[in-house]
Amino acid sequence: MYRPEIKVLDCTIRDGGLANDSHFPLEVVRAVYKACCDAGIDYVELGYRNSKEMFDPEEFGPWRFCDEKDLRAATEGIENTGTKICVMMDAHKSDPDDILPAEESVVDTIRVATYVKDIDKAIAIENAAHDRGFETTINVMAISIESDWELDPALEQVEKETSVVACYVVDSFGALYSEQVDYLVAKYQRLMPSREVGIHMHNNQQLAFANTIEGIIKGANYLDGTIYGLGRASGNCPLELLLGFLKNPKFDIRPVLDCVAEVIRPMEKDLDWGYMVPYMITGILNQHPRSAMAALKSDARNDYRAFYDKMLELVE
Amino acid sequence: MYRPEIKVLDCTIRDGGLANDSHFPLEVVRAVYKACCDAGIDYVELGYRNSKEMFDPEEFGPWRFCDEKDLRAATEGIENTGTKICVMMDAHKSDPDDILPAEESVVDTIRVATYVKDIDKAIAIENAAHDRGFETTINVMAISIESDWELDPALEQVEKETSVVACYVVDSFGALYSEQVDYLVAKYQRLMPSREVGIHMHNNQQLAFANTIEGIIKGANYLDGTIYGLGRASGNCPLELLLGFLKNPKFDIRPVLDCVAEVIRPMEKDLDWGYMVPYMITGILNQHPRSAMAALKSDARNDYRAFYDKMLELVE
Repeated sequence: MYRPEIKVLDCTIRDGGLANDSHFPLEVVRAVYKACCDAGIDYVELGYRNSKEMFDPEEFGPWRFCDEKDLRAATEGIENTGTKICVMMDAHKSDPDDILPAEESVVDTIRVATYVKDIDKAIAIENAAHDRGFETTINVMAISIESDWELDPALEQVEKETSVVACYVVDSFGALYSEQVDYLVAKYQRLMPSREVGIHMHNNQQLAFANTIEGIIKGANYLDGTIYGLGRASGNCPLELLLGFLKNPKFDIRPVLDCVAEVIRPMEKDLDWGYMVPYMITGILNQHPRSAMAALKSDARNDYRAFYDKMLELVE
Repeated sequence: MYRPEIKVLDCTIRDGGLANDSHFPLEVVRAVYKACCDAGIDYVELGYRNSKEMFDPEEFGPWRFCDEKDLRAATEGIENTGTKICVMMDAHKSDPDDILPAEESVVDTIRVATYVKDIDKAIAIENAAHDRGFETTINVMAISIESDWELDPALEQVEKETSVVACYVVDSFGALYSEQVDYLVAKYQRLMPSREVGIHMHNNQQLAFANTIEGIIKGANYLDGTIYGLGRASGNCPLELLLGFLKNPKFDIRPVLDCVAEVIRPMEKDLDWGYMVPYMITGILNQHPRSAMAALKSDARNDYRAFYDKMLELVE
């Protein structure tokens, strides 16, 4: 009934860190990490390892940098029977010199996030990470606005020039419909036949979970989710829904349900994520959610018609 | 780019009435009706026409009965250039004698909701409605728990014994995944070749919109939504998402966005619908949401693990 190749990755702290500048209290990170370990999740991503030259440590919290001492504080004393620890490095905002030798690190896997235009930077970081002993992936962001003639050669480069276990379709804008997921997964499989396809979806149109299922049906085996969908703007594929769908008995949904009740929902008063009309509008118009985030902070936050008309001007 | 056969139906007041015993103020019903007319929606369902013998008019609001005088009050003075007015009759809770001749009624279309076991009652009501001049549909509820050997002959009866324009797949429990939608739409098409297939989805697993798209891809042309997903428990396919997806230029999303801001979201303080863990659990376990509704009203509303374990006992 289940496909043992499927790997589930929780990126609650990493993606959620885009909503609070990575300022999660240590006990929240420990609770999410423990829930993932207890639930049998394959990977847990505890933040970014981005450059302190490019992000001010006075402004951003520790999970934007994931210093080893912070990762140790987040994980020590918690039983882990096989959940790998990941960090993400942005291709254009990271320094390969921040990658330690793997044997000195808590980290198992480094995921490199990139726009297509930065693919050479991404590959340089990936190569450095692999050379130092890490498992690696490349995550191609904003895929809904990339054209085939730029994306295709980038994917061919990933196949030829890297050692990634998986390359991800990242729907940063929450704009994809199922038929586009089909198209992209098939393309990835064709151009990177020796790599697994990953799926990372956003929920602007309430399609994050559905598009993840669509990816599974088409053969994607690396699946991202966050607990209760926590994430910037509309958030992500809810991890608990994904576990409810997957039939692999190694997963236990209960620790995730506990974490929703005890850790995630109490953050709702400070972090505002989920389905909201402005995010829906940027999703259907295939735009970055930043305009919607700005609109929601303005006095006109409920004037959806005006926001829609303003966004239409950008795309028409 | 678009399929002109597609018909969109708004059932905000009818399905939402399951969340408040059909007690919407008249001005809310008028606002929803106006938004649908202005948006070019094909059908708007203003409530149930159920029996006053089976529902106490002291307990339930006017939109459980849809007396003609109430429908006139809800619609008069509002410009309508082609939006048909519907009411729903529950096969096991309605009286065919409550159907007037069509020429004396504001109603264009009568939708008969039924469980498979009540298909003969449904057909009797449908026949009466058609004889009195109404367009009709039959909506097969709780489809996720019906077995083929009972469902198939019921659908064959609909094909042979009725005049419905469409027969609906109704995922009352929000339990279907896309592959099950494919299977059911194909079955409906095979057993009822002269009728359109309708899709009515619930959002327990955040799949209502995605499953509606899946139905569209497979050929379903009658599509239900509610504004901002308003409905019992997790609610329905959000109408605004459906309009964002469909490319027919006759639809205008703006009046629906206005209605979300001005009419629907102000009801959030009294009506609690949307994605919640207990509804998600009944969805993944293919159960009626009533247990989740009861749990959410109890002191243990946040003990998701206990609720999950209790529900598992019912199904294992």
